[in-house]
Amino acid sequence: MIPRKKESILYYIRYVNFSLKFTFVTLFPNLIEPYFHDSILKRAIESNFISYEFYNPRDFTTNKHKKVDDQMVGGGAGMLLSCQPLFDCLDEIKSKNKDAYIVFPLAAAKPFRQNDAKRLAKKENIVFVSGRYEGIDERVIEKYANEVFSIGEFILTGGELPSLVMADAISRNVEKVLGNADSLDVESYENNLLEAPSFTKPEIFQKLSVVKEFLKGNHSKISDLKFQMSNCKTKYYRPNKEKR
Amino acid sequence: MIPRKKESILYYIRYVNFSLKFTFVTLFPNLIEPYFHDSILKRAIESNFISYEFYNPRDFTTNKHKKVDDQMVGGGAGMLLSCQPLFDCLDEIKSKNKDAYIVFPLAAAKPFRQNDAKRLAKKENIVFVSGRYEGIDERVIEKYANEVFSIGEFILTGGELPSLVMADAISRNVEKVLGNADSLDVESYENNLLEAPSFTKPEIFQKLSVVKEFLKGNHSKISDLKFQMSNCKTKYYRPNKEKR
Repeated sequence: MIPRKKESILYYIRYVNFSLKFTFVTLFPNLIEPYFHDSILKRAIESNFISYEFYNPRDFTTNKHKKVDDQMVGGGAGMLLSCQPLFDCLDEIKSKNKDAYIVFPLAAAKPFRQNDAKRLAKKENIVFVSGRYEGIDERVIEKYANEVFSIGEFILTGGELPSLVMADAISRNVEKVLGNADSLDVESYENNLLEAPSFTKPEIFQKLSVVKEFLKGNHSKISDLKFQMSNCKTKYYRPNKEKR
Repeated sequence: MIPRKKESILYYIRYVNFSLKFTFVTLFPNLIEPYFHDSILKRAIESNFISYEFYNPRDFTTNKHKKVDDQMVGGGAGMLLSCQPLFDCLDEIKSKNKDAYIVFPLAAAKPFRQNDAKRLAKKENIVFVSGRYEGIDERVIEKYANEVFSIGEFILTGGELPSLVMADAISRNVEKVLGNADSLDVESYENNLLEAPSFTKPEIFQKLSVVKEFLKGNHSKISDLKFQMSNCKTKYYRPNKEKR
């Protein structure tokens, strides 16, 4: 249904002025917001390629002490974010953004990978719900999650950093966020191989030289060599990946 | 050589007032610093359990235009951080902190895991060197890296977020940073299994009930059930892990 001709005005609305909105649900917006104030994401926001907003579950609690967490049922140390503030907060977000796609960064979830970053870059609105303390009442996840992701096999103090990591990885894949579209293609994971070592000038610095072949200007040789080095790095660092 | 007796004053200096310093080498300290201004890490800093400092490679460049990057040798899109500013910066850090342990977050590196977080929590000074643009001249890594880590199979705009992710994961394992030591033990990855779902009050919210067994107070049954659920989650989300 979408016209593909570049001349069409609808093409521009749909593809060229495309903007992805990140909605962060967090008790600590201060841990997230400053990341958008510098470097590549700052420029992307200024150019309207991406945007962001915050919702704080504390603003939705009906508890008179503004409590958002409670003890675990069945025992266990630490506190969990409870249902009511998050249910009400997420209901409001869904009523305002009909395309809201709700993602929970969790320790116990499938790994977030480059393909997910590419896929999610095509969404209109991604909502990241950050847990704190020991986590979130499972019923919130059961009811609202469109997808759950873990960014790695380690434990963090909250979901804020994983939300930012995913937002950053996704943003790079939103059209025009990176000035130079080429630089997307040669990265690690893009071809399922880790990136080869790279060098810049000078050719020799403190007796350390760049790989000699890189200096000779034979691009097919350089490209072969980089492919071999990529393969070696991948074998070394991701031994389980070698099924190509 | 270190006295192990709790009564000894050296024990307290060495173990109880133990403080881990993070040194961030980055062109964009503003992307990192605000994360230490709130929540758990803020408290950890106020209590002197951890501390942090910044070095900007731009302050070390001998280039009159303050340039810190250059084109890739052998061709390729994008810019690389060059040797001179980073060599000089890291030499200064090493001369000031003899225990500096230098870590490079890289896409092409071994995965950072919870065991690494625990191990590195015992260091005195961890230096995180953040790349930007297309990365870092390989000679810097070759000369200075004590360890290289990737936080996951995705590409980010720079090394700042992975540095923060590792600093956060490591901080949680520094003694006394988490108020309640218990809460470390039941987490995902600590026993090589993903965490079971958790619930908090009320028992029923909008017709969604907590797992009934959790309400009955039989702790050995609850514990069995949680173990089963952990096993199921791990099988589902980490199918390659099932070799226990």
